[in-house]
Amino acid sequence: MKTTRSVLANVVQQLRRKSLCRRRKLSSSPRRIIDLRSDTVTLPSPEMIKYSLNAPLGDDVMGEDPTVQKLQQYVADMLGFEAGLFLPTGTMANLVALTSHCLYDRAAEVMIGAQSHISLWEGGNAAIVGGIHTRQLPEDRETAQISEGDIRDFFRDDSDDHCSKTVLLCLENTHNMLGGVALPVEYMAGMSSICRELGLKLHVDGARLANAAVAQGVSIASLCAGADSVSLCLSKGLGAPVGSVLVGDNEFIRLAKRARKRCGGGMRQAGVVASMGLYALENNVERLSVDHYFAKQLAAKLENYGFQISRAVETNIFYFSLPESVLQSKSEYCKRLEQGYGIKITGGYSTGGKLFRVVTHLGVSIDDVDYIADSMVKTLLNL
Amino acid sequence: MKTTRSVLANVVQQLRRKSLCRRRKLSSSPRRIIDLRSDTVTLPSPEMIKYSLNAPLGDDVMGEDPTVQKLQQYVADMLGFEAGLFLPTGTMANLVALTSHCLYDRAAEVMIGAQSHISLWEGGNAAIVGGIHTRQLPEDRETAQISEGDIRDFFRDDSDDHCSKTVLLCLENTHNMLGGVALPVEYMAGMSSICRELGLKLHVDGARLANAAVAQGVSIASLCAGADSVSLCLSKGLGAPVGSVLVGDNEFIRLAKRARKRCGGGMRQAGVVASMGLYALENNVERLSVDHYFAKQLAAKLENYGFQISRAVETNIFYFSLPESVLQSKSEYCKRLEQGYGIKITGGYSTGGKLFRVVTHLGVSIDDVDYIADSMVKTLLNL
Amino acid sequence: MKTTRSVLANVVQQLRRKSLCRRRKLSSSPRRIIDLRSDTVTLPSPEMIKYSLNAPLGDDVMGEDPTVQKLQQYVADMLGFEAGLFLPTGTMANLVALTSHCLYDRAAEVMIGAQSHISLWEGGNAAIVGGIHTRQLPEDRETAQISEGDIRDFFRDDSDDHCSKTVLLCLENTHNMLGGVALPVEYMAGMSSICRELGLKLHVDGARLANAAVAQGVSIASLCAGADSVSLCLSKGLGAPVGSVLVGDNEFIRLAKRARKRCGGGMRQAGVVASMGLYALENNVERLSVDHYFAKQLAAKLENYGFQISRAVETNIFYFSLPESVLQSKSEYCKRLEQGYGIKITGGYSTGGKLFRVVTHLGVSIDDVDYIADSMVKTLLNL
Amino acid sequence: MKTTRSVLANVVQQLRRKSLCRRRKLSSSPRRIIDLRSDTVTLPSPEMIKYSLNAPLGDDVMGEDPTVQKLQQYVADMLGFEAGLFLPTGTMANLVALTSHCLYDRAAEVMIGAQSHISLWEGGNAAIVGGIHTRQLPEDRETAQISEGDIRDFFRDDSDDHCSKTVLLCLENTHNMLGGVALPVEYMAGMSSICRELGLKLHVDGARLANAAVAQGVSIASLCAGADSVSLCLSKGLGAPVGSVLVGDNEFIRLAKRARKRCGGGMRQAGVVASMGLYALENNVERLSVDHYFAKQLAAKLENYGFQISRAVETNIFYFSLPESVLQSKSEYCKRLEQGYGIKITGGYSTGGKLFRVVTHLGVSIDDVDYIADSMVKTLLNL
Repeated sequence: MKTTRSVLANVVQQLRRKSLCRRRKLSSSPRRIIDLRSDTVTLPSPEMIKYSLNAPLGDDVMGEDPTVQKLQQYVADMLGFEAGLFLPTGTMANLVALTSHCLYDRAAEVMIGAQSHISLWEGGNAAIVGGIHTRQLPEDRETAQISEGDIRDFFRDDSDDHCSKTVLLCLENTHNMLGGVALPVEYMAGMSSICRELGLKLHVDGARLANAAVAQGVSIASLCAGADSVSLCLSKGLGAPVGSVLVGDNEFIRLAKRARKRCGGGMRQAGVVASMGLYALENNVERLSVDHYFAKQLAAKLENYGFQISRAVETNIFYFSLPESVLQSKSEYCKRLEQGYGIKITGGYSTGGKLFRVVTHLGVSIDDVDYIADSMVKTLLNL
Repeated sequence: MKTTRSVLANVVQQLRRKSLCRRRKLSSSPRRIIDLRSDTVTLPSPEMIKYSLNAPLGDDVMGEDPTVQKLQQYVADMLGFEAGLFLPTGTMANLVALTSHCLYDRAAEVMIGAQSHISLWEGGNAAIVGGIHTRQLPEDRETAQISEGDIRDFFRDDSDDHCSKTVLLCLENTHNMLGGVALPVEYMAGMSSICRELGLKLHVDGARLANAAVAQGVSIASLCAGADSVSLCLSKGLGAPVGSVLVGDNEFIRLAKRARKRCGGGMRQAGVVASMGLYALENNVERLSVDHYFAKQLAAKLENYGFQISRAVETNIFYFSLPESVLQSKSEYCKRLEQGYGIKITGGYSTGGKLFRVVTHLGVSIDDVDYIADSMVKTLLNL
Repeated sequence: MKTTRSVLANVVQQLRRKSLCRRRKLSSSPRRIIDLRSDTVTLPSPEMIKYSLNAPLGDDVMGEDPTVQKLQQYVADMLGFEAGLFLPTGTMANLVALTSHCLYDRAAEVMIGAQSHISLWEGGNAAIVGGIHTRQLPEDRETAQISEGDIRDFFRDDSDDHCSKTVLLCLENTHNMLGGVALPVEYMAGMSSICRELGLKLHVDGARLANAAVAQGVSIASLCAGADSVSLCLSKGLGAPVGSVLVGDNEFIRLAKRARKRCGGGMRQAGVVASMGLYALENNVERLSVDHYFAKQLAAKLENYGFQISRAVETNIFYFSLPESVLQSKSEYCKRLEQGYGIKITGGYSTGGKLFRVVTHLGVSIDDVDYIADSMVKTLLNL
Repeated sequence: MKTTRSVLANVVQQLRRKSLCRRRKLSSSPRRIIDLRSDTVTLPSPEMIKYSLNAPLGDDVMGEDPTVQKLQQYVADMLGFEAGLFLPTGTMANLVALTSHCLYDRAAEVMIGAQSHISLWEGGNAAIVGGIHTRQLPEDRETAQISEGDIRDFFRDDSDDHCSKTVLLCLENTHNMLGGVALPVEYMAGMSSICRELGLKLHVDGARLANAAVAQGVSIASLCAGADSVSLCLSKGLGAPVGSVLVGDNEFIRLAKRARKRCGGGMRQAGVVASMGLYALENNVERLSVDHYFAKQLAAKLENYGFQISRAVETNIFYFSLPESVLQSKSEYCKRLEQGYGIKITGGYSTGGKLFRVVTHLGVSIDDVDYIADSMVKTLLNL
């Protein structure tokens, strides 16, 4: 860490000397907003809305919304599962998956990555809402992988009264907090094998599974072969306004539908939004590669300027850190970047609170890469 | 009960003799569906959709969707509260209300009506999802009211280690299961007084509170004066496809927003559907009186034919029973009514399993009253 | 109620004229305490302690305490079950029974009597600790029985997403809050049949099941034939200081042992107290008839004096009410009864808060019946 | 690890050559059992039982057992707190502590050590029974300490809807799973400071806090200065058969008493066992140093023989590993050690499943050190 800091401190000094970084006020306040806080901020396009207007509707609580059914089957087919369930959010998709897999054991334990979204950003709801004990296993900082050894060591059947029973393993792909890391097919398959061997179920938090597939040039289905359930988010990189789809076998989805109702996720004419998800899936998967290219370009430029990127960029998310001396005004950095240049990023979006996050998506233009990089440097120098 | 049965048995015999009830097949199968199962089945009108297309959107998890904010404030103002929160369903609105009111006591008990929707039709989620003990108090079968005496008798502070602490009283208005009963302003005010005296919070499950207000010719706000929170459903009689709004004071709504996230109800560009809710509130409240008139007309005709209506119709819901001799083919009755005449109702939609439910709404035409009544009689005679 | 009050008001006036009720101070403050608050207050006898000293011990968490094992098998045999589990309290025995029966369904509902101990006096722990929804069914005020009709009406399988699944029925025998009512063999058997028919499990809260058996002259086993589990309390009428035993089949007890550990009920050398429970079972069952005789005698005398006893006394518990005019000083009545005569009873020990409870047990002498009755009258007159 | 294995493999070969390790059958099966599985296996001594017989009793649910009260105050005074609560087990003491500290926030998160007893050996009950999210922070393998940095990084207030609120930090002293490590006064004080700064409560799982104090030559109170609650186990090294005491301020203990009732831990004449706890505290604290000396002696001998002890022995617990080649018959090792020599230890008593645990206590004689060490070597050679 000390090396990191000193290196960066030097870099900042060098940057001050670079001509492009001369201290000067922007001549005019920016009108355009470039929102890199998350890929959830995208707005539905006119085409998406138009598509939506033609979708037939019904009461989905009664199982009578044809658009919802079409979406559910579409995702199930795409991922290679029997059935799907539309839910208002990815958080509920995960919650419903966990409680459904653990439905038949009230003393269940679920293994999750310590840095996973379920662990850190879903309100502790596995325990608080679901009454499930999570076993938080460390991921490798580079590969974002949970080790086979840890899974075997911490696995518990129901023979010891001192222990809850391990029922499920959750993997997040791509892994958000460790830098949008795409877990490869081989790793997913290996984990699936271990789960089968140990009698565990496997849930994939695939909020950004399409990113993982596109980044690696593999099919989405190949990344969840052998899994028992997958949640896929429509309102992140895919660009729909609302919703996630959870897939599994028929019986799992029946239980998940019951769990969705208990959580209050059984919407009526949900086709209104499911239709936009369908459009997103039919039109916005391939283009994720643009977001990845964008993120890599931006990260490369920033790295070139001396920014420390947390790891090699694989998909549409990366984190960077700033010299300790700057950290005291971290929120100030984000604020000035927005006020001065119309660029929004999130700071402190990590457990360590020492990182800034950048997420690319269809709502921002790759043409802005230079502008973004330059603005980020300028803001740093003006802190 | 025996009297009821014998009376109805006679009525059926009489009906068989009436000319309009002659056994005959319908000349042709019906194309039109008249869906009286619930007021949740309504589809968004073209005007509603058009209104929706102009709504500005944003990421509501970040608090940046102007349409959601407009809807939330609209409902808060209409009901007389500081703030509102948009949720995907009425079930989640109630769940979030209960857990938020009980947030500061993990040993909390909530008083609910034994026949209330929370008690019977929300998956037991107060306990299963929320970890809250419900004290189920009997409602008067006629007035749908919980008695002051029971509230006082069952109230517990936290002085006795044997008891959970009573924190909240829930009232449902209109009361669905007892027949769409509209609780009057005086009763609501009286309950509010008792709650204040005992230190209880008061939550109104106002899924159909607009119906209660219109039916009694009072403002919606007058029915929740003194309450601490109210949930209002947009996708029932009001005709929006998705969503409910929960209102309360600013701090309550802050907690509710946290609870919504935990339950997985924090949607992104939720304005897509919130806009339709806004349209519903601006256009569909007054017209609920039509639904009530419709229900009363239909019930009167059926009663005239000898059907036993469970109680005087007040709003858009009523239940009726059929002679015991017919009950063995109850599901058959609903099936034939649909197959023969295109009319859908729900049977067994009660705890007793002995009642049929009829719900009127903007999706059915009051011109069909005669057709519906006649079809129901004919179907009965042909069982 | 009005009749009740006026009758009692008259009685009190008459009592004032009776010679035995002359106002006078007791010549000396009483030394002896007669504690009728509960049958939990009994102290271990010298014989019980002596028996205990010879009991072999071990670590029961490891399943190695021979005395605990002997007790568990003793109760299992006595009640006609495969296996037993020793627990620190009756409340935990019920909690563990409920969570074990519901282990394989996280969306489970349990039917309980609205006035049962589980409903009212166990801290709402089925929901709060166990995450189980309780369906509170009304008992007949006279027979303390839940009706077959209600069970059938409220039973839910898992086909409707709106509902939790009914998994278990709980019956309390004797029924404390309705007056120590002993449920007969025929009723228990009938309930067992219904449960089998519906696929429900049956748990008997038999905290005072020995009282029920002795009072009716039947074997304890006959009262739980067909049940899936029974909890029996050793520290109530039976006179042991600590503990309850839960019985069921081997697999149920295996699950219950796991649940006990989770709740923190897995004690080490528990034979120290289990031994006293064994002594209690071997020596104190038959003598419960004395407690019942005592309670009936006392109630008869009080009734003769004009006290209103809530119902015919069957076992060792009865409740009585006092005229409304006296009620404002209800706690005062208990206080004066204790201060003036050394007699302790509990007031307000009902949901209505309008009743006083008397419980007889081996720690009080039946010779004191006259003294107790007279003292209660005198105290009433001196309020 | 490879080094470890090869070193040990050599050692085993050398051992085979040592004369004391000649393969031979024991001439006779041992009568005496030396139980080193846990310090929970101790039996009450005659003196302890005699002391117990004179203890006055009462109904502790009613707060009337003088011996329980005396014990509670004794521990409170010893640890420097206002009040105490007697509970049947240490697991319940921790569970009650967690739920009481989190009583006023249903979205609470508690920080625990990843290798702590609460994390691994209490059935996941914080989540499953208590509905509390645990944040599992890694301990340093050497010092058994959670780092200040991690606490600060993972701390969350209630401002972010995505997160549960951090309410409590738990520290385990001595730390069982990392080898009976005694956390020093300075570390405890430092953690207390951080907690105060962050607004966190601090709970000390002091099941073996007396061991920590004796091992470091400090008062028990000094190890919990600044903590909000401490649980102390009477049935481990102190030698009582049953029970733990939880201490805190008066209001905390009031809440804990309510939580104990909900969990089913409110026993009646609990003085029967509390008395033995009192004896243990008055007589068995100082002598823990013998257990520590015993453990160190034994570990030293084993290390001398080539066993790999997991870390320097500080108190009465140590773990050792065996060469990989032996591991396949690990349970066989324990079995043969018991059958051949009457010595019981636990194998696989670690998350890694690769360690054996030895615990010394008052129930075993330090004179047996040589016999134990030799037997363990012989058994190894005979596998």
